[in-house]
Amino acid sequence: MSLLVVGTVAFDAIETPFGKTDKIVGGAATYACLAASYFTSESKLVSVVGDDFPQEAIQNFKDHKIDIAGLQIKQGEKSFFWSGRYNNDMNSRDTLDTQLNVLATFDPVLPESYKNSDYLMLGNLVPAIQSKVMDQMAKRPKLIVMDTMNFWMETAWDDLMETIKRVDVLTINDEEARQLTGEYSLVKAAKKILTMGPKFLVIKKGENGALLFHKNQVFFAPALPLEEVFDPTGAGDSFAGGFIGYIAQTDDISFNNMKRAIIYGSAMASFAVERFGTERLLGLKKEEIESRIQDFIDLVQFDITIEE
Amino acid sequence: MSLLVVGTVAFDAIETPFGKTDKIVGGAATYACLAASYFTSESKLVSVVGDDFPQEAIQNFKDHKIDIAGLQIKQGEKSFFWSGRYNNDMNSRDTLDTQLNVLATFDPVLPESYKNSDYLMLGNLVPAIQSKVMDQMAKRPKLIVMDTMNFWMETAWDDLMETIKRVDVLTINDEEARQLTGEYSLVKAAKKILTMGPKFLVIKKGENGALLFHKNQVFFAPALPLEEVFDPTGAGDSFAGGFIGYIAQTDDISFNNMKRAIIYGSAMASFAVERFGTERLLGLKKEEIESRIQDFIDLVQFDITIEE
Repeated sequence: MSLLVVGTVAFDAIETPFGKTDKIVGGAATYACLAASYFTSESKLVSVVGDDFPQEAIQNFKDHKIDIAGLQIKQGEKSFFWSGRYNNDMNSRDTLDTQLNVLATFDPVLPESYKNSDYLMLGNLVPAIQSKVMDQMAKRPKLIVMDTMNFWMETAWDDLMETIKRVDVLTINDEEARQLTGEYSLVKAAKKILTMGPKFLVIKKGENGALLFHKNQVFFAPALPLEEVFDPTGAGDSFAGGFIGYIAQTDDISFNNMKRAIIYGSAMASFAVERFGTERLLGLKKEEIESRIQDFIDLVQFDITIEE
Repeated sequence: MSLLVVGTVAFDAIETPFGKTDKIVGGAATYACLAASYFTSESKLVSVVGDDFPQEAIQNFKDHKIDIAGLQIKQGEKSFFWSGRYNNDMNSRDTLDTQLNVLATFDPVLPESYKNSDYLMLGNLVPAIQSKVMDQMAKRPKLIVMDTMNFWMETAWDDLMETIKRVDVLTINDEEARQLTGEYSLVKAAKKILTMGPKFLVIKKGENGALLFHKNQVFFAPALPLEEVFDPTGAGDSFAGGFIGYIAQTDDISFNNMKRAIIYGSAMASFAVERFGTERLLGLKKEEIESRIQDFIDLVQFDITIEE
């Protein structure tokens, strides 16, 4: 099934305890599309870059069968740029520089061929822009997944609430879930968020895994314990891409299938953090993904039978 | 199979965002014995209290079929007392008062009937005292589990290393694993600790679950997401008690059985935090425990089959 992904395609400059990069290709939609490409061959990208964006990165999208008809390239302008430094714990980071550039005036226009996409992933963007993408769909997608962040809770609350109301799955991190609801307990926070519109909620906890809430059900997937987390940038977006990519491939939005999607998403995140930027998400082999899924099975599966 | 538990039996005074208690019965061995009592009916307690320790608490041990022949009651002296206040996140706490009292001169003497115990749980104590308990065993237990804390890393390093060398399973929290090894990555820390003597390592991460390491294998169990964590005191000790209690009951120290034991331990911890002190660990029904285990199964189990 077809999947439409909207979000940033950008440059990042990253410092971690393991080293630093010059400008490398990043952005939420980049990670999400690459991760999803291992599941569905019908990914469509909507984003904007400047004429400084490298041909090689565009070729990477093409090699991964990602449709870039909706990728605007603005002549004479520069791509969105973010620079950050991770602390030793790799769970917190400081932003060193943010240059919106082309993102400041981003007005997504969906090509006709995108408007009937079966699945929609709204990467973290201004909530009004996310809504605008939904407005342009010719039919209501089978599932709309939305990512957002605390910044919009502080600067665009009303728009955020209007946008959240329209989506099926919200993905946010634990601190954002707390900020959105004023509840410290994630179980209580989830209950509140599930009254705001979304039928499903994914709470991302970084190295502490992810929780999926739906009605009174809850599912938990750990992050894979790794010897080294090399660069956490894009982990959440790779997770989201693997999650929605797997759902688009299987065309099944049952809770049981979403559990599997969470595991596939976690696997894609575990690859993403092994190298700087998108390096590890390029040219992964099917066997590598299957072996990683087996690692997750080994990590959490146990056999206890409760007598009825 | 019989289980010997050594550790503190004490008074706690606790403040949480939900309320505060006067002196209530606590202590690592109290929680561990009560949790273990749901699995093995042959728990033996070694500890020390003053003559201020309430008969009712002693009756609770008896009601749970816990052998207290090794519980010294020192006339004219006072029981160990700890007082603490939990912060809003419930993951950190400040110690308000510590009165060692009888614990300052604690010299555990094992009754003859204890010396052939099959399983041994060394609760957090001065490492030299933990060693002294091992010295008194008539035969080497099938499995020795040891809990410790950062305080001994700072004040009794050499004794700690000597004691750790002699045990099979070490249980510590994530920060302690990092402090013990100087490694931030828990996977790297685990590799180092598994060269120090223990064949198994349990890293407790509080509300973020627990990891079991053995050779190149790793197993993860989440904590149950709860609407309210009422009082985290004793969660780690209840976990350890459920873990070793289940192993003693099944008399099986295979990695697969330890996985099950980790789940049972996590279930006992999830009960402990639902009320102040040991309240929830008294008089639990078999059906309540089974229902809680089912919650864990529902929380983490998924069905993905990797084609060979």
